[in-house]
Amino acid sequence: MTDNFRRHEAMLADALAALQSRAFWTPFPETPSGKIYGESARSDGEAAFQALLGAAFDLPGHPEERRLGAEVSPWGLDLRITYPSAGAGALIAASGRAAAGWTAATPAERAGVCLEILHRLNRQSFLMGHATMHTTGQAFPMAFQAGGPHAQDRGLEAVAVAWQEMMRTPATAVWEKPQGKAAPIVLEKQWRAVPRGISLAIGCNTFPTWNSYPGMFASLVTGNTLIVKPHPAAILPLALTVRIAREVLAEAGFSPDVVLLAVDEAGAEITGDLIAAPEVAIIDYTGSNAFGDHVRANAGGALVFTEEAGVNSITIAGTDDFRGMCSNIAFSLSLYSGQMCTAPQNIYVPKGGIQTDEGPKTLDEVAAGIAGAIDALLADPARASGVCGTIANPATLARVASARGMGGVLRDSAPLAEGRSASPLILQVEDAPDGPHRHECFGPISFIVAVEDADAGIQAAADLARSKGAITAALYDTDEARIARAIDAFAWAGVNLSINLTGGIYVNQSAAFSDYHVTGANPAGNASLTDSAFIAGRFRVVMSRRPKAA
Amino acid sequence: MTDNFRRHEAMLADALAALQSRAFWTPFPETPSGKIYGESARSDGEAAFQALLGAAFDLPGHPEERRLGAEVSPWGLDLRITYPSAGAGALIAASGRAAAGWTAATPAERAGVCLEILHRLNRQSFLMGHATMHTTGQAFPMAFQAGGPHAQDRGLEAVAVAWQEMMRTPATAVWEKPQGKAAPIVLEKQWRAVPRGISLAIGCNTFPTWNSYPGMFASLVTGNTLIVKPHPAAILPLALTVRIAREVLAEAGFSPDVVLLAVDEAGAEITGDLIAAPEVAIIDYTGSNAFGDHVRANAGGALVFTEEAGVNSITIAGTDDFRGMCSNIAFSLSLYSGQMCTAPQNIYVPKGGIQTDEGPKTLDEVAAGIAGAIDALLADPARASGVCGTIANPATLARVASARGMGGVLRDSAPLAEGRSASPLILQVEDAPDGPHRHECFGPISFIVAVEDADAGIQAAADLARSKGAITAALYDTDEARIARAIDAFAWAGVNLSINLTGGIYVNQSAAFSDYHVTGANPAGNASLTDSAFIAGRFRVVMSRRPKAA
Repeated sequence: MTDNFRRHEAMLADALAALQSRAFWTPFPETPSGKIYGESARSDGEAAFQALLGAAFDLPGHPEERRLGAEVSPWGLDLRITYPSAGAGALIAASGRAAAGWTAATPAERAGVCLEILHRLNRQSFLMGHATMHTTGQAFPMAFQAGGPHAQDRGLEAVAVAWQEMMRTPATAVWEKPQGKAAPIVLEKQWRAVPRGISLAIGCNTFPTWNSYPGMFASLVTGNTLIVKPHPAAILPLALTVRIAREVLAEAGFSPDVVLLAVDEAGAEITGDLIAAPEVAIIDYTGSNAFGDHVRANAGGALVFTEEAGVNSITIAGTDDFRGMCSNIAFSLSLYSGQMCTAPQNIYVPKGGIQTDEGPKTLDEVAAGIAGAIDALLADPARASGVCGTIANPATLARVASARGMGGVLRDSAPLAEGRSASPLILQVEDAPDGPHRHECFGPISFIVAVEDADAGIQAAADLARSKGAITAALYDTDEARIARAIDAFAWAGVNLSINLTGGIYVNQSAAFSDYHVTGANPAGNASLTDSAFIAGRFRVVMSRRPKAA
Repeated sequence: MTDNFRRHEAMLADALAALQSRAFWTPFPETPSGKIYGESARSDGEAAFQALLGAAFDLPGHPEERRLGAEVSPWGLDLRITYPSAGAGALIAASGRAAAGWTAATPAERAGVCLEILHRLNRQSFLMGHATMHTTGQAFPMAFQAGGPHAQDRGLEAVAVAWQEMMRTPATAVWEKPQGKAAPIVLEKQWRAVPRGISLAIGCNTFPTWNSYPGMFASLVTGNTLIVKPHPAAILPLALTVRIAREVLAEAGFSPDVVLLAVDEAGAEITGDLIAAPEVAIIDYTGSNAFGDHVRANAGGALVFTEEAGVNSITIAGTDDFRGMCSNIAFSLSLYSGQMCTAPQNIYVPKGGIQTDEGPKTLDEVAAGIAGAIDALLADPARASGVCGTIANPATLARVASARGMGGVLRDSAPLAEGRSASPLILQVEDAPDGPHRHECFGPISFIVAVEDADAGIQAAADLARSKGAITAALYDTDEARIARAIDAFAWAGVNLSINLTGGIYVNQSAAFSDYHVTGANPAGNASLTDSAFIAGRFRVVMSRRPKAA
């Protein structure tokens, strides 16, 4: 046992218990409060972020052929940070050289290193919040949570599931086979976990840490070496992560090159070279279906885990809390301007309207209720920016502009007070087979889709999830028999369903240790965070056996 | 809970305990004894087999477009059995229609059905022994064991691991998130396992049940429907299996078409159509690397689990039981004429000879010791046939003939008294980079490979395993430091190592509940029997969540 492991063993045990109960649990508080993180944590984090700006990011001993980096915050700040950059060949060679020591480490040593990395990441959550805010364009409170504690939760979850997997096979056993009246055959057996090789994590622009930590920590703790390839527009959060990982590795006596950073430039990405390298044995990818297809086609024998895109839906069949429903949906559509893989896009509403606690509502009244709730939510400019954040990618703004012609505009999008921004656009469409709502329209774009009745809406949403993928589905309904049918329909479509959310919990939210994120059962991704299928193949078990000495 | 599940629940619990301890355990006795299986079991099995010959094999209600079947026993018997045959389209349609009821069953209902199938298969082990003998060409004792109890063990192992996986996520949980001084957010969550779709099992000629049961039962118990595609020369063992499965399914109230048989003819196989069908979501394949590549390239989005080929080795560095070593190796080379995926092919021996309990032995003396032990083992014609069995595929006989020119003949191959047969051929070669021993030579062909010293032999065997694949490796050595180096080398190559086997246990043998069969860490296959990676992806977990009623 190592010091790192002993220090964090109780946290690991609690994580394993939480995974079993799937009740609420986290060791990483989500509130950006000085009372929790230390009175100076807020100012220290801000100062640490400021000190990084306009400077060469230091990664001692990291392979470096040149310096790259051109991050500009969607909030307007030019980060002017440069990172050490090396080609795929140099990175793979360095990773290969670092492998032997890491492979030879015990599961407890590796878990200790991973838990200590997560612990230190947690202490840096304010810095990570700023880094996430100014690369993803999220508002600070969300950037703190999603870039910090919530991502750390997902990393810890992966370590815990991997620990469970690695502990499934005993290190040794005695196998004694009876031979009738003769002496039994007695063998001593030993098993060890061996890693696959180099693991590549391909990060995304919008959730660089939250989406990457599960695969990164799953591969690392199971003995693989790691190359982290950030999106060129969101390098800093992963560079900070790699720096902390390298520090902990070196302190524990391992080569820091067990974890490497692969920085490139938009338009000259080295991702393709890394994917095609035969030494790369595991790939975790978050991004578009189109590039996902490319990864799969070029990954050779590597295991590929993906989170891709889909079309999430809300079906409104009825409610006993119309205001609560509209407010809840308004927040889900507004949060980070719809740039979450869990954000709803299509809202299916019966043509004949619905029953509510305020009496019957027509389709137009439902639409107006949601649009009005968004207007109310975003009435205060500071609050609006705090909810919507900014638009990470200029292409998303262009998509909003071109979407206006796709249907009747129920609520128009407009810039907010700060940064490159756009409030939610809501369009009304029929459920035509070639309708624009049948494709992912990433960003603050949603569709009110008129359907014959509630069951037709459920079926349309489930069908689309099954064919195009979906990560979330929501239903508002008061008819328990129909709710049961919807549960079946969305299970068949492989999508997690949230029913009648009206308070401070949203369909967008996926809680570590309880909610599996993505099911792997529809085209929105093949991996599920964090089930054993996401972990078990990252290492292999090898045996030696011999007759037991008398 | 179902009756089937209750009836076999204790067996499942014992299997789970065995998987944890990895000590010896089986509920299915391997001895073909009337005392165990019932006084009339032997004659009943023989009579049942005879009754099948020359007749139409009955699978009530099975899709049938025509009758096919041309099995001829390598022992000489023409089976003249015809089976119902249908095209890929009809099979996939029937499988799809059967899916809803099976998907809706509880894990306990499905496990109960699978355990009852295994129980009935066990009761039919004598019949299965004859069916296996006259399709694979194994001698009866081996056919009984490998086709019966040992295959049933592997099926049960898959059910047990799958049960463990399905039970990992609770059916329900309450998730309560504190909100400071406000009331907590409380959600009720429900999870269910959903299957992938249709699972295709592609059987092989030599071990139709042993190699197919793990994937078949793993997919079935996790809710997928199953299409079983036997090798055209070894249909009967899987047809009997499918018949029993369909009987148990129907008795339990499910469509028998949950399990279907895909019979085709050599030269007009429908395997390609089945692989390419988008409805086929899981493929279990045993066979050549070349067809394995075809499966991977054409499987679309299906999960593919494979056992392919490799080059297994023995390295002889020294021994304190020269006679025991030679006898043990002789049996490993002779058993089923080397047609086991676990049979050794290359025997690395130092040029300068080795130290033994009988004093130093030259390379020639080591080779002569092994050849002599084979001659002694096979001296009695009846015993020789009982060990070697026959040659399943005529191409293997041709390979033996052409192999004679590949090196110096240390022991020539010859027909045995019964059936299409060939005793072991042993050739001597240098370890040249382009040597014939560096490829799989399937069948009773082995090579004594001269190497500089024992460490060079270990490295050569490990290198070849890593590059070409291997399922087993063996080492004879008395130097503990070198043994430790060998354990590291073969772990790096991803191959299970047996050390100093001299008694009644052989490198070829892989025991369910204890030995993982294939590591998945080298080209000999991507799947390991039976780890969680072999199971976990066969189903997905889907959630619904809603606020908890006050």
